[in-house]
Amino acid sequence: METKNIGLRGIEVADTRISNIDGEKGKLIYRGYDILDLTKYSSFEETAYLLLHDELPTKDQLEEFKTKLKEARFIPKRMQENMGNWRKDADPMDMLQAFVSALAGYYDEEFSTKESSYDKAINLISKTATIVASWNRIRNGQKIVDPDPTLDHAANFLYMMFDEKPDPEVEKIFDICLILHADHTFNASTFTARQVASTRAHMYSAASAAIGALSGELHGGANYEVMKMLLEIGSIEKVESWIKEQMAKGERIMGMGHAVYKTYDPRAQVLKELSRKLAAKTGDPWFDITEKVEKTTIAEMKRQKGRDIYPNVDLYSASLYYMLRIPMDLNTPIFAISRVVGWAAHIIEEKFAEAAPKPALYRPKASYVGKYCGPQGCEYKTLDLRK
Amino acid sequence: METKNIGLRGIEVADTRISNIDGEKGKLIYRGYDILDLTKYSSFEETAYLLLHDELPTKDQLEEFKTKLKEARFIPKRMQENMGNWRKDADPMDMLQAFVSALAGYYDEEFSTKESSYDKAINLISKTATIVASWNRIRNGQKIVDPDPTLDHAANFLYMMFDEKPDPEVEKIFDICLILHADHTFNASTFTARQVASTRAHMYSAASAAIGALSGELHGGANYEVMKMLLEIGSIEKVESWIKEQMAKGERIMGMGHAVYKTYDPRAQVLKELSRKLAAKTGDPWFDITEKVEKTTIAEMKRQKGRDIYPNVDLYSASLYYMLRIPMDLNTPIFAISRVVGWAAHIIEEKFAEAAPKPALYRPKASYVGKYCGPQGCEYKTLDLRK
Repeated sequence: METKNIGLRGIEVADTRISNIDGEKGKLIYRGYDILDLTKYSSFEETAYLLLHDELPTKDQLEEFKTKLKEARFIPKRMQENMGNWRKDADPMDMLQAFVSALAGYYDEEFSTKESSYDKAINLISKTATIVASWNRIRNGQKIVDPDPTLDHAANFLYMMFDEKPDPEVEKIFDICLILHADHTFNASTFTARQVASTRAHMYSAASAAIGALSGELHGGANYEVMKMLLEIGSIEKVESWIKEQMAKGERIMGMGHAVYKTYDPRAQVLKELSRKLAAKTGDPWFDITEKVEKTTIAEMKRQKGRDIYPNVDLYSASLYYMLRIPMDLNTPIFAISRVVGWAAHIIEEKFAEAAPKPALYRPKASYVGKYCGPQGCEYKTLDLRK
Repeated sequence: METKNIGLRGIEVADTRISNIDGEKGKLIYRGYDILDLTKYSSFEETAYLLLHDELPTKDQLEEFKTKLKEARFIPKRMQENMGNWRKDADPMDMLQAFVSALAGYYDEEFSTKESSYDKAINLISKTATIVASWNRIRNGQKIVDPDPTLDHAANFLYMMFDEKPDPEVEKIFDICLILHADHTFNASTFTARQVASTRAHMYSAASAAIGALSGELHGGANYEVMKMLLEIGSIEKVESWIKEQMAKGERIMGMGHAVYKTYDPRAQVLKELSRKLAAKTGDPWFDITEKVEKTTIAEMKRQKGRDIYPNVDLYSASLYYMLRIPMDLNTPIFAISRVVGWAAHIIEEKFAEAAPKPALYRPKASYVGKYCGPQGCEYKTLDLRK
């Protein structure tokens, strides 16, 4: 049988300057900078600027960028009304996909120059956060909280969610989470965004499609599944037996293992420490339970298959968000709030790449394995002659 | 430089039983059947059944399928209200992408078995047509026309658009258009749908993403561009000079040429005859102008480059829809009304393929060509040290 490039693994499809993963060394680089440095020294806004513009901003550039982000936070009243017309138990990812796409119904979606596309990116980044927070208020019958221009992006999101300004430590933790999830080269949602952009569709359209891809449980949906698992396990005493039982049945443990990283995912490493810190603050058991899941899975994998396995980005983000009082069905939308930065950067790169080889409309081949009755096709029988 | 598989041309990514193109012979096959036979003998509903189920239906199966399609035509009142909250001059493809995604806000989007997915497909196929027609009424300040259960899919769509039942000849012409556009193997929108489905996202999410891809001017948007060109040319006397001038500047002629067909696209062949027939009925000049565009482009291409060129599916569909009094910005949404059948079939195949090699989450590689300052990344300079 021919090779079919299933899932396109290992197939190079384009050049990128945006990010790079060294799976052997466990390194993730944004535009040349190690994300470990960015989580230590940078902010979500600065990292977003870097991902979009290929350079860290100067002081003036950063101020201007932050001001624009703040100005773009409001969503139209009519969009809020439309959210109110949805089922209150709708999946927040469905809501997000629909309303990011709907931005084009309110804002001019023309997107013809590289320059103007940066403003669209700002609109998209700011409003994605507002859409998620607004929906959470609406579905709970609460009044929408208007954005607060004195707050930075991370703090403002938590404020719009809870109608309460977060304390500085919580703000910092959440800001780092946003930095960590902002890009990860050609994952399924980013590749979807690029693919839609390759047809010359506009940015909201491509980002909405990416949200669709992120909603799948094999992609962004995994951090929701991790929290479901943690709640099902319930206490630290039950971790060992639960994990062993699942693995004996050949089940995957959610949040463990990654197709690219052959060592510790650097994002998991940071999230683990943030989760430890937050649990010490809140007194929640979720960090300890998660750590025990990690250790047990590693030991079982070694025992059963002689292989190493490491946590991925979803393992510790699940409990972290839970301790931030974020409803667990918003885990994936919060992934989107951050990843939208990467999508915007990739959409701009896909449409405005200046160096060869320039991207082209993605149109792969399929191998036809269906009915075949010769070059003229199967004989069409009229309805009365069938069966 | 390494090969980068730009646009994934020629890269096989999956097996499919749904359709096959023989670009050399100019053949398009749906599930074993030549589309030329299907346009002669079949109907949109029967073709949709075939694409979804891999077999032509029996009489009972077709009746049941048609009944289900009719029952699924209504969209929720609240969705109609939400459409009223959009800018009246919004791009109909943006509207369609958002509201197909929004279907998940009203209908249970769980999609766990192959069996239940067929009902989702029916819901999607019926409601996509209703969404397009409803939006057209709303944006024009007209009352929405409820679907008519005595009419088949093609006639009902035209009825919901115009509040008038089409004559049988017009109905037949439009039905054939829907058959012709229903699938075309792994084009950009279908591949997008499959990619989103590969993450285990649900059908509305994947179809909405596909609409995003279709909206790009390099994909579905082309039939809108063709009509813009025809209107710009305006009369048959001006065709020759207009085409020659464009081609002398090295511009592509919209609706001419196809990456896969090396001969006459069989769909263009059928659409050409339908357009000829309709123009004879309405007295419109658009068929003659389009035919002249075809002939002039062929002659100029031969003269300039010694190459053959043929019309693609968009060339004659543009004038055909125009003569059906369909607003030209609905050309691409109408493409979607039909192609949604193929998307649904591909989404089901992607998620429930029974034979190896089974599809996997699409995650290609990128080649990193950005900043590089050694394995530790570039030195992070604090804000006051920059520039």
